[in-house]
Amino acid sequence: MDLVAGIDIGGTKTKIGLVNKDGKSINNTYFRTREFEDLDDYLDKVKDTVDKLVNDCEHEVNLLGCGVGAPNASSRTGCIENASNLAWKGRVPLVAKLKDRINLPIRVMNDANAAAMGEMLFGNAKGLEDFILLTLGTGLGSGIVANGQIIEGSGGLAGELGHVGLTVEEGRYTGVGVQGGLEAYVSATGLKRTILHMQSKYTEDSRFRDIAFNDLHGEDITKAAEEGDFIALKAFDYTAEILGMALANFTAFTQPEAIFLLGGLVNSGKWILDPLEKYFDQYLMEAYKGKVELKFSGLPPASAAICGAAALIWELDKKKLAM
Amino acid sequence: MDLVAGIDIGGTKTKIGLVNKDGKSINNTYFRTREFEDLDDYLDKVKDTVDKLVNDCEHEVNLLGCGVGAPNASSRTGCIENASNLAWKGRVPLVAKLKDRINLPIRVMNDANAAAMGEMLFGNAKGLEDFILLTLGTGLGSGIVANGQIIEGSGGLAGELGHVGLTVEEGRYTGVGVQGGLEAYVSATGLKRTILHMQSKYTEDSRFRDIAFNDLHGEDITKAAEEGDFIALKAFDYTAEILGMALANFTAFTQPEAIFLLGGLVNSGKWILDPLEKYFDQYLMEAYKGKVELKFSGLPPASAAICGAAALIWELDKKKLAM
Repeated sequence: MDLVAGIDIGGTKTKIGLVNKDGKSINNTYFRTREFEDLDDYLDKVKDTVDKLVNDCEHEVNLLGCGVGAPNASSRTGCIENASNLAWKGRVPLVAKLKDRINLPIRVMNDANAAAMGEMLFGNAKGLEDFILLTLGTGLGSGIVANGQIIEGSGGLAGELGHVGLTVEEGRYTGVGVQGGLEAYVSATGLKRTILHMQSKYTEDSRFRDIAFNDLHGEDITKAAEEGDFIALKAFDYTAEILGMALANFTAFTQPEAIFLLGGLVNSGKWILDPLEKYFDQYLMEAYKGKVELKFSGLPPASAAICGAAALIWELDKKKLAM
Repeated sequence: MDLVAGIDIGGTKTKIGLVNKDGKSINNTYFRTREFEDLDDYLDKVKDTVDKLVNDCEHEVNLLGCGVGAPNASSRTGCIENASNLAWKGRVPLVAKLKDRINLPIRVMNDANAAAMGEMLFGNAKGLEDFILLTLGTGLGSGIVANGQIIEGSGGLAGELGHVGLTVEEGRYTGVGVQGGLEAYVSATGLKRTILHMQSKYTEDSRFRDIAFNDLHGEDITKAAEEGDFIALKAFDYTAEILGMALANFTAFTQPEAIFLLGGLVNSGKWILDPLEKYFDQYLMEAYKGKVELKFSGLPPASAAICGAAALIWELDKKKLAM
């Protein structure tokens, strides 16, 4: 059975899975990234994990290669550069060093770009030439596809839409210090910050007045909205307006046919999507109205990152078949 | 001598020239677009003008085709759609109708995208895979190149960066009604509007207090800055800050190697470029600092639009040669 190892390198966890040609993760596992501060130790652990997954598989495995999604990574250079949430500093030649251990095609890309590749091969973007995918998790990542190709930019750092500044008054700071950066508002964390803001702005009672910031979880906010909590409803409306305005601006860049949303914030379902559609339409330039769909991602939520990483190799395979 | 007809369809003038393989306009002319409200009459005039240029040329001409730059045009469809500053409404099948008259390769593209193609073939973007070109004239147009390709978007309306909203308080309106749209600030017209704004904000004396808006020209503002006029200096600083912030945001989209500026505002030289470089660096995310050049366009100012339009055909020719 032909399979690809999808490897998602996150600041907290490294997730690895074997993915078939339809984007289905056959089996997968994870380990804690921070346990391996030394890069060589870390890559040995990656190799061992891939080997174990292959051996444990109930089918005979023909491994085609490894696709890797990682912060600040570029497929052009095969390197990770200055990723603020990883222990390895400077320029990490990931492809070269992993190839020393696993002598198969290896390809690395920024994690959100890899997710966009997954959406194109396996998800709701099949057949689309121009679309944007936003990952709304702890932060806000994005992958932009134009002319049927991922836009990586000259250094693999294109599509950092979370750090687009909004120039709101007294804007919030993002983790990298961009004032008014979108991800400070639109992400699971941004929504929590907005719950604080709304409590400071209004006097209405709310369940959140008894919950500290560090005890607050995304699902609580959705649940509160369902119960009609004033602060929760205000927070969703505010988040949706900022995201709707940002997506209207993004449309002026690449005129995508669709914008897909993925990640934790998506679990809020209609509480985010309904006001988002309203504001997006309101801010969209007349010429674009009715031409850009807003949709949730079609990737399996639990294994989206693995699936996206594996897509980097499956894409090469499909190109070969097409030739 | 192999030549391409470059045709720039503007709301006021239609400029046509014959362009050689180095991007040099051999001879050119123009006529008033509005004199031909009927599309067929207009295209007859275009054909006659091209014929006349070919006949008047002192060399034997081998015409390879016609490249056309026009507002709201897409090379994918070959049409102009709902261009607000042209008389022909709805969807105009420009390529098909022009081919009926001139049976050679015809290609049409949004005018700013065509200028970016010209910059890539003939100007300062030779060899670059990722760059942005801004045209700062009456309005603000833009062409985005990523992966060595122009981004046209699903309907040919990508790169409308003039209509990206800035969410400034009580934002100015653009011609298409986008509040806070960039071109309301950063364009020859935007700079004039800022001269009004600065006069309303400050009490300092200025030569502009004796000049009405409709009598005001870009070159007056540059001249006033040279003389140390308080209002002119404030206006350049304000324009540069807004443009610098916007360019820092644009960088997060496609991580270009360079951003090129073209058009009337560029004639202000250091009065715009010096503060622009300061603000751009100030607003740029750390990871991008020192990696994105700001430069003026390398296209000849007087024939940049013709040269860009002609590049659409020269590009096809170069691709053929490369095969």
